[in-house]
Amino acid sequence: MSRFLRVITLEEAKKTIGAYWRPEPEVVPEILGKALGRVLAGDIVSKIDVPPFDRAAYDGYAVRASDTFRAGEKAPKRLRLSGRLMAGEWPRMKLGGRACVEIATGAPIPKGADAVEMVENTEVEKNLVVIKRPVAPGENILRRGSDVQKGQTVVKRGKTLGPAELGVIAAAGVERVKVFSKPRVAVISSGSELVTPGRKLGLGKVYDVNGWTLSAAVSSCGAEPIYLGIVPDRPSQIKSMIKKALKQSDAVLVSGGSSAGAGDLIPNIVEKMGKPGLIFHGLAMKPGKPAFVAVIGGKPIFGLPGYPVSALMIFDQLAADYLRELSGISGQRKPTVSAKLTTKVVLAKGRRELLPVKLVRENKSVYAEPILKGSGAITSLLTADGYVDSPAEKEFIQEGELVHVKLFGGWDGD
Amino acid sequence: MSRFLRVITLEEAKKTIGAYWRPEPEVVPEILGKALGRVLAGDIVSKIDVPPFDRAAYDGYAVRASDTFRAGEKAPKRLRLSGRLMAGEWPRMKLGGRACVEIATGAPIPKGADAVEMVENTEVEKNLVVIKRPVAPGENILRRGSDVQKGQTVVKRGKTLGPAELGVIAAAGVERVKVFSKPRVAVISSGSELVTPGRKLGLGKVYDVNGWTLSAAVSSCGAEPIYLGIVPDRPSQIKSMIKKALKQSDAVLVSGGSSAGAGDLIPNIVEKMGKPGLIFHGLAMKPGKPAFVAVIGGKPIFGLPGYPVSALMIFDQLAADYLRELSGISGQRKPTVSAKLTTKVVLAKGRRELLPVKLVRENKSVYAEPILKGSGAITSLLTADGYVDSPAEKEFIQEGELVHVKLFGGWDGD
Repeated sequence: MSRFLRVITLEEAKKTIGAYWRPEPEVVPEILGKALGRVLAGDIVSKIDVPPFDRAAYDGYAVRASDTFRAGEKAPKRLRLSGRLMAGEWPRMKLGGRACVEIATGAPIPKGADAVEMVENTEVEKNLVVIKRPVAPGENILRRGSDVQKGQTVVKRGKTLGPAELGVIAAAGVERVKVFSKPRVAVISSGSELVTPGRKLGLGKVYDVNGWTLSAAVSSCGAEPIYLGIVPDRPSQIKSMIKKALKQSDAVLVSGGSSAGAGDLIPNIVEKMGKPGLIFHGLAMKPGKPAFVAVIGGKPIFGLPGYPVSALMIFDQLAADYLRELSGISGQRKPTVSAKLTTKVVLAKGRRELLPVKLVRENKSVYAEPILKGSGAITSLLTADGYVDSPAEKEFIQEGELVHVKLFGGWDGD
Repeated sequence: MSRFLRVITLEEAKKTIGAYWRPEPEVVPEILGKALGRVLAGDIVSKIDVPPFDRAAYDGYAVRASDTFRAGEKAPKRLRLSGRLMAGEWPRMKLGGRACVEIATGAPIPKGADAVEMVENTEVEKNLVVIKRPVAPGENILRRGSDVQKGQTVVKRGKTLGPAELGVIAAAGVERVKVFSKPRVAVISSGSELVTPGRKLGLGKVYDVNGWTLSAAVSSCGAEPIYLGIVPDRPSQIKSMIKKALKQSDAVLVSGGSSAGAGDLIPNIVEKMGKPGLIFHGLAMKPGKPAFVAVIGGKPIFGLPGYPVSALMIFDQLAADYLRELSGISGQRKPTVSAKLTTKVVLAKGRRELLPVKLVRENKSVYAEPILKGSGAITSLLTADGYVDSPAEKEFIQEGELVHVKLFGGWDGD
């Protein structure tokens, strides 16, 4: 069948995927208390003026500014104390001339008053308040609506909700927000040699790694991973595992078992599980030859290599953008670092190549050290900070050449 | 009482706290599947060699390297195909001379073989495999223990578990790890003027903001916030709320209500709730005058200002380091950005000052724009990327002066 291992470029692969599947994020309501880190699916419009009334900005005395004119240390003005206002109280009094009201930070300004004298500039003499500095009309008052006006948009769609956003949304009186739902992504590790950590390791077996790394990578795309475990290279078990995955999730990742050498097992199986089935098999990219994508029942299945670093790189190139779009975070930038390559590397001939590198800061420069341990090494996972994506026509990268490193996660500059 | 509002410096405050309380992170077991983002509380030592046996690095044929010597396109060597090995199988055969075994990536190398010929360099002729390139002994074999040796430390205590770490721990056969438990931090907003978003806003009331922003800030310190809600300025309610908080948590944050003007309510109450009670009240810092710390039953209570940006800055200065230590992430760096101040700012006289700023990138420089809206403005939350911490003796910062901005969260360079 022509769709099997007719390698295509990543651009062709994405066009093919686009013809059969388009990620559409779902919108769900969420209460503010659970919305930290989620992505807003609609603008937030304030229901109220913030502040909702004229408030005292400091502890002190609500006054008529004109009563304080020319007040000074040596020629203070004396005002009659006619009441006290705590935050949360509503003033029923109206301030008369030559009088003042003790007022706490945040309390409403009573009628008749037009400024707040800070407590630091006053003294109390029995029932009189001694004012030692003049205040101008409006001084030390937070005006109604000065911060946010009713109907004003305070946070826009697409914004990830952090502490500040949650605070402002709360201030605007909004308790329920619309956010993009976290898509569920099933993760399957395939291969008869795989065993779950904690179980006994039989002869010829190794512990599964991709289940853990790919689940974490799915999380970093804003999606919820569902690790379904290991499936051996048996058609019936693969078929039922994929059926289960499609039922429980919005997208499926399968790593391993898709190479052409030991068997086209999984591509063969997904091809027959529904329409359109397998949409391509094989990327003209090193690594990536065994990668495939299938679409069944409107859901995509991404086939990734078995080697852990390869699986993460191909995940990043082939699946990550779609999962980010499905999570509503497609607008966010992916981190890239410019660095100088520490040693000359000869690239795969005529194939785009993804080269894992470790970043090292020396003096003020950043260097990228190619990881030449071989893609089978698990410990490369710990050393690789990211990878360099080199085009097919490039034959080598020179020592000292500037490269752009796509980061796997954060890099803290070490 | 002398402990009330005798302002002290931040350094004195930390010494005082250290005399009464020391954060001690707790260690809990966790399964690998739930350990993403947690901090390792002990070194991880591999239980096995990785790989656990000599494996084929590629699909191809296990051979004796000597049988392939001088093989070439024009002078190929022909070897008898004597079996097939899939990944996960254990070889019982021993390879004889002039023979080979078809082998899948990851499958164990059979006895007698010492190299793998890649499938690309071969052809099959009935029961013979045509070898067109020589291989050296050891070529295309992943040696037992070449990646990790049994007993080797693979991930160290203090490391935050990301995709790579989880993958390597899994490969080492470890399924349960010891991580630092997430401390529970109670968050209380105090003030009779406060209302929870979603409820009706009565006259003189405003919606609570700090409950949301401080809970999120607690999360960013690796701790689990428990937002207990709003408590009005009533001694009996404050007392029972703090009792409840101490019962449910490892540390308590209370914002608002601790100013000296409208009442020393909360400091007065915590002073009487247990020993040692209030340990200081008032920081010689703008903002920070109303800040306090109490220790009751071996747990700290941090009193923070009521204004949202002030509360976040004082949280960062006074509480964040302790919560990070309690979460086991004290080793991680806090992000700082160097920037040029856009305009001259006159600082508080004789008091250390925290100046909220917005960061702006222009051409290749980063500028810090002071936020002069006043600490009462809620929308300053959205504009402030962080703050500049200026020492008491500094009287002003010049336009264009280089400042170090402590970030509230991440700053993506916009």
